[in-house]
Amino acid sequence: MQAYPLTLTNHLKRARAFFPDKQIVSKLEAGVFRYTYRDFAGRVAQLANVLRGLGIGQGDRVGTLAWNSHRHLELYYAVPCMGAVLHTANLRLSRDQIAYIINHAEDKILFLDEDLLPLVERLSLDSVRNFVVMLSDPHGTVPTTSLRPAHNYEDLLRSGSAHFEFPELDENMPAGICYTSGTTGEPKGVVYSHRGLSLHSLALCLPDAFALSERDTVMPIVSMFHVNAWGMPYAATMVGAKQVYPGPHPDCKTFAELIQNERVTLTAAVPSVWIAMLAELDRVHYDIGSLRTIASGGAAVPQSLIAAYERKFGVPIVQAWGMTEISPLATVSRLTAAMEDWSEKERLRQRGKQGRLIPGLEMSVVDGQGREIAWDGRQSGELRIRGPWVADRYYKGQQFADGWLHTGDVVTVDEHGFVQIVDRTKDLIKSGGEWISSVALENAIMAHPKVLEAAVIAVAHDRWQERPLACIVPKPEFRNLITKEEILEALRSHLPAWWLPDEIVFIEEVPKTSVGKFDKKVLRERFKNVQL
Amino acid sequence: MQAYPLTLTNHLKRARAFFPDKQIVSKLEAGVFRYTYRDFAGRVAQLANVLRGLGIGQGDRVGTLAWNSHRHLELYYAVPCMGAVLHTANLRLSRDQIAYIINHAEDKILFLDEDLLPLVERLSLDSVRNFVVMLSDPHGTVPTTSLRPAHNYEDLLRSGSAHFEFPELDENMPAGICYTSGTTGEPKGVVYSHRGLSLHSLALCLPDAFALSERDTVMPIVSMFHVNAWGMPYAATMVGAKQVYPGPHPDCKTFAELIQNERVTLTAAVPSVWIAMLAELDRVHYDIGSLRTIASGGAAVPQSLIAAYERKFGVPIVQAWGMTEISPLATVSRLTAAMEDWSEKERLRQRGKQGRLIPGLEMSVVDGQGREIAWDGRQSGELRIRGPWVADRYYKGQQFADGWLHTGDVVTVDEHGFVQIVDRTKDLIKSGGEWISSVALENAIMAHPKVLEAAVIAVAHDRWQERPLACIVPKPEFRNLITKEEILEALRSHLPAWWLPDEIVFIEEVPKTSVGKFDKKVLRERFKNVQL
Repeated sequence: MQAYPLTLTNHLKRARAFFPDKQIVSKLEAGVFRYTYRDFAGRVAQLANVLRGLGIGQGDRVGTLAWNSHRHLELYYAVPCMGAVLHTANLRLSRDQIAYIINHAEDKILFLDEDLLPLVERLSLDSVRNFVVMLSDPHGTVPTTSLRPAHNYEDLLRSGSAHFEFPELDENMPAGICYTSGTTGEPKGVVYSHRGLSLHSLALCLPDAFALSERDTVMPIVSMFHVNAWGMPYAATMVGAKQVYPGPHPDCKTFAELIQNERVTLTAAVPSVWIAMLAELDRVHYDIGSLRTIASGGAAVPQSLIAAYERKFGVPIVQAWGMTEISPLATVSRLTAAMEDWSEKERLRQRGKQGRLIPGLEMSVVDGQGREIAWDGRQSGELRIRGPWVADRYYKGQQFADGWLHTGDVVTVDEHGFVQIVDRTKDLIKSGGEWISSVALENAIMAHPKVLEAAVIAVAHDRWQERPLACIVPKPEFRNLITKEEILEALRSHLPAWWLPDEIVFIEEVPKTSVGKFDKKVLRERFKNVQL
Repeated sequence: MQAYPLTLTNHLKRARAFFPDKQIVSKLEAGVFRYTYRDFAGRVAQLANVLRGLGIGQGDRVGTLAWNSHRHLELYYAVPCMGAVLHTANLRLSRDQIAYIINHAEDKILFLDEDLLPLVERLSLDSVRNFVVMLSDPHGTVPTTSLRPAHNYEDLLRSGSAHFEFPELDENMPAGICYTSGTTGEPKGVVYSHRGLSLHSLALCLPDAFALSERDTVMPIVSMFHVNAWGMPYAATMVGAKQVYPGPHPDCKTFAELIQNERVTLTAAVPSVWIAMLAELDRVHYDIGSLRTIASGGAAVPQSLIAAYERKFGVPIVQAWGMTEISPLATVSRLTAAMEDWSEKERLRQRGKQGRLIPGLEMSVVDGQGREIAWDGRQSGELRIRGPWVADRYYKGQQFADGWLHTGDVVTVDEHGFVQIVDRTKDLIKSGGEWISSVALENAIMAHPKVLEAAVIAVAHDRWQERPLACIVPKPEFRNLITKEEILEALRSHLPAWWLPDEIVFIEEVPKTSVGKFDKKVLRERFKNVQL
C-alpha cells in the first residue's frame, strides 16, 4: 500500500474540493457571520502565509486564547497543516496557570479574541513575539494595548496570498497541544499528532460513536480550547458537515437560538450546560426539533437529565467518556440492538453508564492485585487504555511506563462491556491489598436521613496500610442528635464489614474546590495524624 | 501519541471482548450453521495454532479456494493475525490462471471447500505442502483424493489449543493478497497491509459510506475470494455486527431466504445479482423489509434497477466504485442533504453515477494533455487515486511511477464532486492529443434504429496518431439496407465533427469475452492494418 500519511491536510483538501458551498456559521458580538468552506479554505491558505511571514516554522508552537468561532477553526487547520503546532490555551485557568502553559509550550505567537486583551496584558510571557487580535468587528482597529506588536487578524489575512502549497507532513508530527487543567500540581501538556487526530476523526464519525455525516449541522458548545472541542471541528470538516460556532457569549439563549435558526442536528457540551438549557427551554419556546443527538460528557450525565430530554423533546443525550490524554474520546454509551427491547428503566440505567470502547482502542481493567477484573458490573479496577490516539507521555516528560495510559479512574464493566466510573484511584482506600471505594461509602453514608454531606478519606494504618475515615456533616436539625454507632449500624446492612470506616468525625462542612468538588486534599492534610 | 499499530488483531480482540454473544450465520450444504463471536474467536485461536503447527511463519502465504462461509471468515483473521498472508484465490478464474496465481504467490497451504476438490486435483501446484479440506458435513471424512496430505479442517481445529498469543505486528506488514482477474496479460497480485485494511474498515463504516454499526446484520454476497468481499467481513467484525454468509450455492433463492429469515439489513453484490433477484422476488414472496441498504458496484448500476428496488421494496441501492488495487472502496454515490430536495429524476441520475470519494483518499483527474479537468460533468480525464489503502505496486513488481494509482478509468466529475465513469483509457481514441470516448461513440451509433451492436476501436493514423474505426452489426432486417453515410449523418447532429469515425465496417457480430464484454483486443488485431 502507498505510504500515504494520515494528516489534517487531507481534511482541508477534501472540504475545499467536495463541499465548497457548505456553510460555516459563527456568532460574533456584531451578529451571525456566515461563509462557505470555499472561503474558509482560502482564508486558511492566507493564514498559513501570514504564519510563515511571521517566522513560524515546522514544529513551532502557536497559541490561541479564543472562544468557539470560525477564526479559531481557521487556526485549527492553518497551524497544523503548515507544519506548526496549535496550542489552544484554556482561558478558564487561573492567570498564573495561563502564563505557565504559554511559557511552558514556548508559544511564538498568541492569537487572542478581543475581549481577552485585558487578561493577556497582565500575563508575564517569555516566548511570545507577536500578538494577533481577533476583533469582534472585522473592520475595527486594535484598541490601545501594552501588547507589542499587536496585529489585527483581518488586516494580516488581507495581506496574505490565498495560495499556499501545504507541505507533505509525516503523520507522526505534532499538530496540537492541550494542557490538562491541573487540579493537582502544574498543568501538563498533551501533544496530538496528525495521525492521532485523523484516526480520532474517523472513529468519532462511526455510527456507534456520533455518526457524523455530510448531512449534519454540528455545533460544538464544548470549548475549542478544551481538547479540540472533543474533536468535533476536525470530524465535521472531514465529512463536510455544516458547522455552527456560538462565539464569545456561551449562554443558553445563544445556544437555543442557534439550534433553532441554523437547524443544528448534533451538539456537544458538559451535563451542566444541558441542565441549564432545560430551564431556558422551559422558560422560552424554541424549536429544537432539528436535533438528532446531544453528546455529553466531562462528568457523569444524570439519568434524570437523559430522561427529561427524551420525554420533553424526544432528543437522545448520548453519554461519552474521555480524557485530555485520549484526544479525548474513548467510550460512548450507545445501546446495542438487543438493548432496545429492554424496559425504559433498564435502558436509562445503561445510558447512564459511560459506555463501550470505540473501535481502534484497547482497554484493560486491573484491580489492586494487578488482576484483570471480571466483567460483571460489580468488581472494580483501574481503567487502562491504549491506542493510536492515546498519549504516551506529557510534553517534555518521560514516556509512561508500561505502554498503557493509567486513567486514574476506577470502573466496573458490565457483561455488555459498558464501563461505569465509580471512583478516582487517588480517592480509593487501599486496605490489605483490596480496594474500598470512597464514593460508594460516601453515597451509603449520605443516604442516612440525618446526614447532609460526607467525605471519606484514607488514613495510614500499620496493619492494613490504609483504612477509611468518614468526615460527616449532620443536617442542622440533627447536629447533636447523631452518633457514630447509628451510622455504622446503618452501613452494616449495605456494605461488607471490612468496608466500614474505622473512625467517624463530625465536621462543620466539607471543604470544596473552586469548582465545587469535595477537596479531599484538605481533609487528608487535617486528619493525617489520626491514629486508628 | 502511543505507537499503537493499526492491525486486524485489534478487531479480533474487540469482537471477542464486546460482542461474545452476537451471531455469525453460515449456510452450508447441510443447512444453516450458527455460532457466536465467542466460538468464532476460540476457533480462530485454534486455527492459528494449527497454522503454526503446519510450519507457517511470519510472511508466509496461505491460500484459500472457498465460498462465503464462517470458516473462510476464520481464515480471514487467523492467517493475518498470526503474521501470515491470506491469499484468497478466485475460483472463477481459468484452471491455468488459478494454478498461476497460487504458484506465483507461493502459497504453502491451500484451504479448499469440499466441492472444489476435483478442480484442485487437476492443478499443477509447486509450493503447496498441505491441503486442508473444509467439508460440508463437519463430522464427515475427507473423500479419497490425489491431494497429499489432505487434512480435515475440523479435525485439525479440534487438535489446536483455543489459546493463542497473537504477536504484536507492524501495521505495514502484509495481511492479504488478491489477484486481479487479468483480462489483459497474467493476473497481478495486490498486497493488503494491516494498516490499509484497518483504515478501509473505518472508512467503510462511515455514515457517508455504508454506515455499518453493531445494529446491522451484514450479508456479503460479493465473493470472499474477490477483494475481501469489498472489505465487508472486516468492517462487520470491527463493529460487532451480526454476519450472514450464503455458502457454496450462491443463488437468488438462498439470498432471499437468508435476508428474510436472518433479518439482513445490509447486503452487497454486483448489479447482475440484483437484476436476477428482482425476478426471484417477483416470482416468490419474501419479506425483505429488514434491508436498509443494498450496496452495489463492480459495474455501473442501471438507474432503472435503482428505481425498481426503490419503488417495489423501498430499499435504496447505493452504488459504489472501487478496484482490487484500492482495497477496493473509493467512491460511494450517496446523496447530500441538499440533493434530497431535487426531483426524483435528478436524484436517480445522481445515484446512477459512481459517487464521491470517501474520506481518507485523494483524487486527481487528468486529461490527454496532463491538465486537471474542470468539475463540470462534461470534461473527462483519467481518474488517479492515492491514499493509505491504495496499492503502490503489484506483488513482486516495481513501484508505480508518480505516487498515484492510474486507474485506467476515464471519468467526468460534476460540480458536486460525483465521479462518473465514461470509458477505459485503453479503449480511448487518442486523436491529435485529444481524447475520443469509444463508449460515447458506441452509444451514439447504437441509438441508430438500424444498428444492433457497435464497437469502436482506435486505428493508427500518420497525422493524428489514432482515429476511430466503427465496427457495426446491423439488425438482421437491415443487413443490406444500411449505409455508412446514413450512420455518419445521424452522428453529426450529436457529436463534434472530429469525433466521427474515419471508417465504418459492417460485421456479423462483435466478439465477446467469457463474461460477455466486447472483446476489443480481437477487433484491434483484425483491423490493425486498415489504412485510413
